[in-house]
Amino acid sequence: MNTIDTAVYMADLGFRARAASRETARAGTAAKDGALRAIARRLRQQADALVETNQLDLDAARKAGNDGAFVDRLALTRSTVEQMAAGLEQIAQLPDLIGEISELRQRPSGIQVGRMRVPLGVIGIIYESRPNVTVDAAGLCIKSGNATILRGGSEAIQSNRALAELIRQGLEEAGLPADAVQLVATTDRAVVGSLITSPQWVDVVIPRGGKSLIERIATQAPVPVIKHLDGICHVFIDESANTRMAIEVADNAKTQRYSPCNAMETLLVATAAAPRVLPELCRIYQQKSVELRGDEATCSLLTQHGIACKPASDEDWRTEYLAPILSIRILGGIDEAIAHINEYGSNHTDAIVTSDHAHAMRFLREVDSASVLVNASTRFADGFEFGLGAEIGISTDKLHARGPVGLEGLTSQKFVVLGSGQIRT
Amino acid sequence: MNTIDTAVYMADLGFRARAASRETARAGTAAKDGALRAIARRLRQQADALVETNQLDLDAARKAGNDGAFVDRLALTRSTVEQMAAGLEQIAQLPDLIGEISELRQRPSGIQVGRMRVPLGVIGIIYESRPNVTVDAAGLCIKSGNATILRGGSEAIQSNRALAELIRQGLEEAGLPADAVQLVATTDRAVVGSLITSPQWVDVVIPRGGKSLIERIATQAPVPVIKHLDGICHVFIDESANTRMAIEVADNAKTQRYSPCNAMETLLVATAAAPRVLPELCRIYQQKSVELRGDEATCSLLTQHGIACKPASDEDWRTEYLAPILSIRILGGIDEAIAHINEYGSNHTDAIVTSDHAHAMRFLREVDSASVLVNASTRFADGFEFGLGAEIGISTDKLHARGPVGLEGLTSQKFVVLGSGQIRT
Repeated sequence: MNTIDTAVYMADLGFRARAASRETARAGTAAKDGALRAIARRLRQQADALVETNQLDLDAARKAGNDGAFVDRLALTRSTVEQMAAGLEQIAQLPDLIGEISELRQRPSGIQVGRMRVPLGVIGIIYESRPNVTVDAAGLCIKSGNATILRGGSEAIQSNRALAELIRQGLEEAGLPADAVQLVATTDRAVVGSLITSPQWVDVVIPRGGKSLIERIATQAPVPVIKHLDGICHVFIDESANTRMAIEVADNAKTQRYSPCNAMETLLVATAAAPRVLPELCRIYQQKSVELRGDEATCSLLTQHGIACKPASDEDWRTEYLAPILSIRILGGIDEAIAHINEYGSNHTDAIVTSDHAHAMRFLREVDSASVLVNASTRFADGFEFGLGAEIGISTDKLHARGPVGLEGLTSQKFVVLGSGQIRT
Repeated sequence: MNTIDTAVYMADLGFRARAASRETARAGTAAKDGALRAIARRLRQQADALVETNQLDLDAARKAGNDGAFVDRLALTRSTVEQMAAGLEQIAQLPDLIGEISELRQRPSGIQVGRMRVPLGVIGIIYESRPNVTVDAAGLCIKSGNATILRGGSEAIQSNRALAELIRQGLEEAGLPADAVQLVATTDRAVVGSLITSPQWVDVVIPRGGKSLIERIATQAPVPVIKHLDGICHVFIDESANTRMAIEVADNAKTQRYSPCNAMETLLVATAAAPRVLPELCRIYQQKSVELRGDEATCSLLTQHGIACKPASDEDWRTEYLAPILSIRILGGIDEAIAHINEYGSNHTDAIVTSDHAHAMRFLREVDSASVLVNASTRFADGFEFGLGAEIGISTDKLHARGPVGLEGLTSQKFVVLGSGQIRT
């Protein structure tokens, strides 16, 4: 498309989305849940056709030379279609937050002031070539009363078109506007630029994917962005930590899975705890082929125990490996640990293992991260484990949504005032 | 200053602010309230000296040809100094939100998950030449555990330096870091540019002043901005409105004061209510010299009653007059009123006068504004009237703070997890 075509296309999408958002904002819970269930039913009915359509995307992706992990994420099977359908039904079972009025209080003037939870309006979601995100994101936006414009990776275009058609049908069956969920049907990249620079049509953009994409969108977008950047997560083993617990939590935080953003990247250990914790723990890492990079004290201690340890550079403390590599630092205690995390961390997720109540409380309050844990693995930091019922992403911002973002992050609260003719004097 | 000097100066301010913010984040309520009271005491003790220093700014401003309103805002008198001191003592009496843990719930995995309210970190405040803002903003930031960098208008520089010195002394007296409140001591404009583009030092910027300044900051700042743009506020008089109430509310919303952002700019009236409300109401406006601009139906009705009415243009519906001018439109009823407000309004503050419960509820839910009122004047939309205890501004954004922003808007919530060694399986 040329520039004018892109602008016209975006204005059409945006106008429809804005109009639909007015309807979805006032839609009742039954209609929204009905749409979610109707889409789930259609997904199951059309599972074979979806898998067949997906084959076109898979063939093209393989032909283009994409790697196995890429093709895996792109693939739809009968089982992933069932997961998408079940996911929508779970969202339907969550409470409807929209319209909830809280903190309604009487003021001296006679008015009552409270806060009502309302949808944000139109949400733009930009994501990689994973067709399941099309359905998950649509489901969360429908439930929260928002309209959405979805822009998935171009390699998934055939699959996404088929899914978007089923979503439209489901919305219409439930009496909601089909335009409540629109897919950007072109793979033209200019549309992304148009989406993030159209505050008149889009209230918030949620980019999902690589860090460089997200950074580019965040710096270029006049539209507010809910974003996830680095997850440089720490576990700090305090002097008073229970040895067994420290080893289990630190092992789990690193090795349960290497790629999630809430996996540990740097282990901090109080000097007094290092001799009783590190050798046994690092033997486990060694068995699991985790490469260890330590400061001088760590390398010296591990070498004494015959465990390989490379020297860590300053760059290591700032690196999100997302891989079987771990940096380790021995430091004096809680003060140095908090200072290290606030200096080198990414304000994402950090944990302390301790038996000392005062240290636990200081860590919770002073570590400036979205999720802070005492005596639990960093891997718990996600929307489902936290009880949000769903997750559209994890925010590393401090404003608006912080940490795992569920339905609430797709809403705002406005002030509502109930009066009986009060005027200001 | 040259570019390098500006960068060095900003880095120094930023580094100090970041370090101070770590201390203020863990400061106890007694220390924060103690600092507020110590500053209040010093303000009273130094009132004469402050008025004298302010005279230097006033002389320079008059010499530079600034108008009377400008000089009024710049002036410090014994009475405004007392107001600033009393304001700080009021802030000291507000509850301390920091550290509050809410919604702590047990999860199936055994962990407890809750949310802790914490300061945002470092807040940059950019404002016009009003020295009282220096003290008000510092007070709110101290109470909410934030460090702040204040950049006031250059015409108030002498007054602001004197106030900032008293604030430093009060902080130190209470055992808090003096750098918790720093004033940009130069009038070099490049510092503003540096402030809004330094996310490593500044977590959020709050600009106060003219719309063009705020728009420029918002589009240029990689740092998140809490901002206030237009206040195009509406009152809608529904068919079922009580005549007396409608007249009182619409009169108050427009004429109690013309310049505040929550004053009404457009009056919408249901066709069925117009004959019994508009002539009497507009006679009041006429007596108060409010210029009336109406659509065809309005002008025709008012002319019949001998009241002057100019035709309103499309531009009028989009204009924030902040002056004794009012646009008036007669329309079918609630649907058209909601559509008009969502089309022409600025998502700020809108009110309905009605006796119809269903209409009241629809207006609250469907009007997409930060503050929505039933049977009360739009003039109530401020932090004090809403019971926030204080106000740093009114946000026209949907994300994070929406509407009047008090202490809560200067905080965020992080997730806290209390475990006993749980790992993820």
